[in-house]
Amino acid sequence: MALRAGVKLLMGSGVLWRQQGIRALFATPRRKAAGSPTSHQAPSASDLNSFAFRSHTCGELRAAHVGQEVTLCGWLQYQRHDMFLVLRDFHGLMQVVLPSDADGSQLKQTMSAMPLESVLLVKGTVIPRPSGQENMKMATGAVEVQAKEVQVLNTCRKLPFEIKDSVKKSESLRMQYRYLDIRSAQLQYNLRLRSRMVMKMREYLCNQHGFVDVETPTLFKRTPGGAKEFLVPTQEPGKFYSLPQSPQQFKQLLMVGGLDRYFQVARCYRDEGSRPDRQPEFTQVDLEMSFVDQLGIRRLIEGLLRYSWPEEKGTLPDPFPVMTYAEAMQRYGVDKPDTRFQMKIMDVTAQMRPVTVGFVQEALSKSNGCVKAIRVPEGATYLKGKVLDSTLQMIREQYSQDVMVVFVRSDGSWKSPLGKNLTEELQKALAGAKAEDLLLLAVGPHDTACAALGKLRLEVASRLEECGVPLRDPNTFHFLWVVDFPLFLPKEENPEELESAHHPFTAPHPEDMELLYTDPAKVRGQHYDLVLNGNEVGGGSIRIHNSELQRRVLQDILKENVSLLSHLLEALESGAPPHGGIALGLDRLISMIVGAQSIRDVIAFPKSFRGHDLMSNAPDYVSAEDLQLYHIQVTPKQ
Amino acid sequence: MALRAGVKLLMGSGVLWRQQGIRALFATPRRKAAGSPTSHQAPSASDLNSFAFRSHTCGELRAAHVGQEVTLCGWLQYQRHDMFLVLRDFHGLMQVVLPSDADGSQLKQTMSAMPLESVLLVKGTVIPRPSGQENMKMATGAVEVQAKEVQVLNTCRKLPFEIKDSVKKSESLRMQYRYLDIRSAQLQYNLRLRSRMVMKMREYLCNQHGFVDVETPTLFKRTPGGAKEFLVPTQEPGKFYSLPQSPQQFKQLLMVGGLDRYFQVARCYRDEGSRPDRQPEFTQVDLEMSFVDQLGIRRLIEGLLRYSWPEEKGTLPDPFPVMTYAEAMQRYGVDKPDTRFQMKIMDVTAQMRPVTVGFVQEALSKSNGCVKAIRVPEGATYLKGKVLDSTLQMIREQYSQDVMVVFVRSDGSWKSPLGKNLTEELQKALAGAKAEDLLLLAVGPHDTACAALGKLRLEVASRLEECGVPLRDPNTFHFLWVVDFPLFLPKEENPEELESAHHPFTAPHPEDMELLYTDPAKVRGQHYDLVLNGNEVGGGSIRIHNSELQRRVLQDILKENVSLLSHLLEALESGAPPHGGIALGLDRLISMIVGAQSIRDVIAFPKSFRGHDLMSNAPDYVSAEDLQLYHIQVTPKQ
Repeated sequence: MALRAGVKLLMGSGVLWRQQGIRALFATPRRKAAGSPTSHQAPSASDLNSFAFRSHTCGELRAAHVGQEVTLCGWLQYQRHDMFLVLRDFHGLMQVVLPSDADGSQLKQTMSAMPLESVLLVKGTVIPRPSGQENMKMATGAVEVQAKEVQVLNTCRKLPFEIKDSVKKSESLRMQYRYLDIRSAQLQYNLRLRSRMVMKMREYLCNQHGFVDVETPTLFKRTPGGAKEFLVPTQEPGKFYSLPQSPQQFKQLLMVGGLDRYFQVARCYRDEGSRPDRQPEFTQVDLEMSFVDQLGIRRLIEGLLRYSWPEEKGTLPDPFPVMTYAEAMQRYGVDKPDTRFQMKIMDVTAQMRPVTVGFVQEALSKSNGCVKAIRVPEGATYLKGKVLDSTLQMIREQYSQDVMVVFVRSDGSWKSPLGKNLTEELQKALAGAKAEDLLLLAVGPHDTACAALGKLRLEVASRLEECGVPLRDPNTFHFLWVVDFPLFLPKEENPEELESAHHPFTAPHPEDMELLYTDPAKVRGQHYDLVLNGNEVGGGSIRIHNSELQRRVLQDILKENVSLLSHLLEALESGAPPHGGIALGLDRLISMIVGAQSIRDVIAFPKSFRGHDLMSNAPDYVSAEDLQLYHIQVTPKQ
Repeated sequence: MALRAGVKLLMGSGVLWRQQGIRALFATPRRKAAGSPTSHQAPSASDLNSFAFRSHTCGELRAAHVGQEVTLCGWLQYQRHDMFLVLRDFHGLMQVVLPSDADGSQLKQTMSAMPLESVLLVKGTVIPRPSGQENMKMATGAVEVQAKEVQVLNTCRKLPFEIKDSVKKSESLRMQYRYLDIRSAQLQYNLRLRSRMVMKMREYLCNQHGFVDVETPTLFKRTPGGAKEFLVPTQEPGKFYSLPQSPQQFKQLLMVGGLDRYFQVARCYRDEGSRPDRQPEFTQVDLEMSFVDQLGIRRLIEGLLRYSWPEEKGTLPDPFPVMTYAEAMQRYGVDKPDTRFQMKIMDVTAQMRPVTVGFVQEALSKSNGCVKAIRVPEGATYLKGKVLDSTLQMIREQYSQDVMVVFVRSDGSWKSPLGKNLTEELQKALAGAKAEDLLLLAVGPHDTACAALGKLRLEVASRLEECGVPLRDPNTFHFLWVVDFPLFLPKEENPEELESAHHPFTAPHPEDMELLYTDPAKVRGQHYDLVLNGNEVGGGSIRIHNSELQRRVLQDILKENVSLLSHLLEALESGAPPHGGIALGLDRLISMIVGAQSIRDVIAFPKSFRGHDLMSNAPDYVSAEDLQLYHIQVTPKQ
């Protein structure tokens, strides 16, 4: 290749600046002309290079660019044969050829000592790669850039780990050096997809359906019963703000205010101490609208998700399937069923009634007694011995529920602790059972049996997957609405009293209004949960807009001190429209879409499961002087 | 008008439901079909009625709709002649005609007792108003809706003030009943314009220029010297998070992470105790990009504002004007000049040198001594007596600077305390002075004289405006970049030491690099402020990306404890690209665009100037139990 005269080497890195003189370090590369059409007119697609020094990203050059003069900026990914640099940015990799004449020799020498991850600016010409040297695995592999000028913008001096997705590193190291971890292709993808998807959601809500983006306060008053709310001391002695768990009150007040389609990508706070895969601050796509019913909100959200769904992740159904809470509990033993796979819970009570074994008879003699079963295809092949025993033991400990195991032998005969008590009727009820299947039976109170089998269903799925039996495809997205939840639940500490199943602002089901006065525990609420692949990714409700009804729920049923919510009750008396809303858990939703193990992988700067920022070492001790301003002191250890 | 049979009255309000039976209250009006094209296809403009009970807003019906069956939802604004209802929503007003036959009489009777601001759903037919009864002041005034069915969705039972913009109410009452205040046309406009403008900003950044919306944590570590940062106690004894004043560190770390175009509409926190027109939490449009220089960021922001600027507010120039800090201080006496009007500061030192009056001679004998002047057109007419005296007294108290007043009499002769000492040269220098002008002269040290006249310029403008002389048109928008700020300023408490003029991450001006080692106080920074009509609405800088330089600034010049920022210094050593950014103060910007007196008028739920939420009474006392969880106690009063 002919070499051009005037190859320049500018060095701007800290290592080199003393030799080069101070000015060289701050020599400003020429920026792409701000007045150029790409930077000022609305382009059809994003212009990733506007206002910047570069003319192209490292990922966009193709054969069609051959002959163009380009400027690239990026990180030194690797060097080859003392002649090639590979430059990386968020968009891809680009091979750069260093000049091989006399002018280029100083450059080569400098580059040969240049640490990986140093930041370079390269000016040069796009040339085709010599025939046979194209790299078809690289998007830019048909071409390379013949460098005329290389500027060292910064030298990388220390790296605790290599910037390669293939290099394994502990999560704590990744979090301590999060700014390096973010350079990984996976995190770049996750964070950029999150941004793109949220932007589409905003377009749908704001531009297409007239929703108004309203920011609500995060320094607020403590909610009655608001455990888990962080406190914020103020300069007024003894007075504290609280960081709210959601903008619930504000969004209802906006409806009263006639701002009838509200949404916000809202920061929320919840102090749960140390919990795996929870964050003390998290994000909700929060919305509320007036003059709407349950179906209206559901259709809105379905439209929202279809509109914002990443193209590469397939399409979503229209409408989403719906299941009642009762059905979910009965068929899946859980209120957030993973409907990607079968193994549903079957009721075989009738078929088991004739069984004369004592414990079965005893269980069935009680009012809620029943026998439930799930059939595990190929379970007899993969689930046995210790693995099965320890799984059943775990269920026994968590649910106080024994589970009977029936193997279908390869010859089709059944092996069961009930022996010949296993009636023909039962065998018929489980007629789908094939050789090598496993049947799991729970005898006991209805709710316990279902809950235990529901948990067992998921555990068994994990065990089978560990054996290579694919059950739950992470690239399949099964959305499901769960509806008709109970409005109230018995309190754990005192089952005679009721507490809200979700929150006290949820409206009762219109058909259950009379039960509110006769048997509140039986009232269903107008609550809906959005479930994705067995995870709750959203929840909402139609709210109570009538102040008397709200007062009845708060005061008479929940025994709350209504004075703490007097502003809300007053608001309902001041012309509150019917309204309802929902909040989607954005972190969880995005993590499932990108297939991340943890929500930490879709958050730029997450905290550890203990709530620590490992990079800056937060939370931390503060000075007595700082505390004094807030009239607080740390309680001495007892 | 012919009356239709089957007029129905459904009542859903709390007042009426006992008579009507429980179900009526929860009778769900039919929602607009979710499967209709408007709700599922992407409409060209916002569909304000999708998924809702209504078919139209109260503001959109016109003559072209005559004959259509419509459903409206809204608040009862007023009633007329026992026959008309006027229904209001965020979009406008609509007149509804009640049926006047027998079927309608019960409805009329119910409506006659219906409190204003009750929430109604009306079904009916759009009809033209009888000839001569059109109301041209009303957008919907050509038509009315002949009601067939009226549902009372909620009865309004108490109102502390009328929902009319014309009704004066105290700000504290407005804030206590914010949910009613939000119904005002002005607040609806402000909040909706804010949402629309932010959406346009997002389109510009995200869709057009490839910026990535990244949420950064708000539970973070205390910044060194971070007074004004709220603390958040944790369940770890003695350890606190801090609510950051801006995402500064995070956005720089994102650049190091190769996420090279970041933006966020970021919630920020600053505890300033009680200050008028400040809020403890506020919003910044925060962005950062890599491989960019100062001009690049400025052009980006100019494009952003032009793209998102509300059409009804005129157009913005391209490019925006630029002024150095030195010029701003010299000509306007302030670093955020209001360039909507003249009265600039003139230097008349040379012309005053010959004046033999003692105090002038003394002032000019000092190194920074000077004489500065502003000319107030028509000032002699409007500014005199007590008003002028008290204004000058205020300046004297704030700046320790006397100001001489020269009147230009109607015959053109000058009246001055200097008498004949007012030289001909000086008169020439102020040659623009006309009859009835006022000249204000400050003799003293340069910076003091300029600052005093700068303040006086604004005060005088206010006095003149009070007299009806228009000077500062609130509908004119003068954006201005102020650049070349000093990088460091002498500390107030110890002028021998330097502190950052903005923050320690600002890069020095490339031309002043050597001064950093010889005379740091003279170094200019690569900082830029965006000023609008005399208010700072944004500020940013090109950052230091070299770790040695950052260490020198922090350690050698600012004498900071660098260990608190070790993660940032380490990040700069790990391949940090050149980068810069800016933050726009969204609350202030929007308040100026809508002409609001206070940023509280563009925030849905603002706090009072004392930081109180008057609606919920936050901050408030919390229980000892709550404090115990966080290992803190309130310091007893001394």
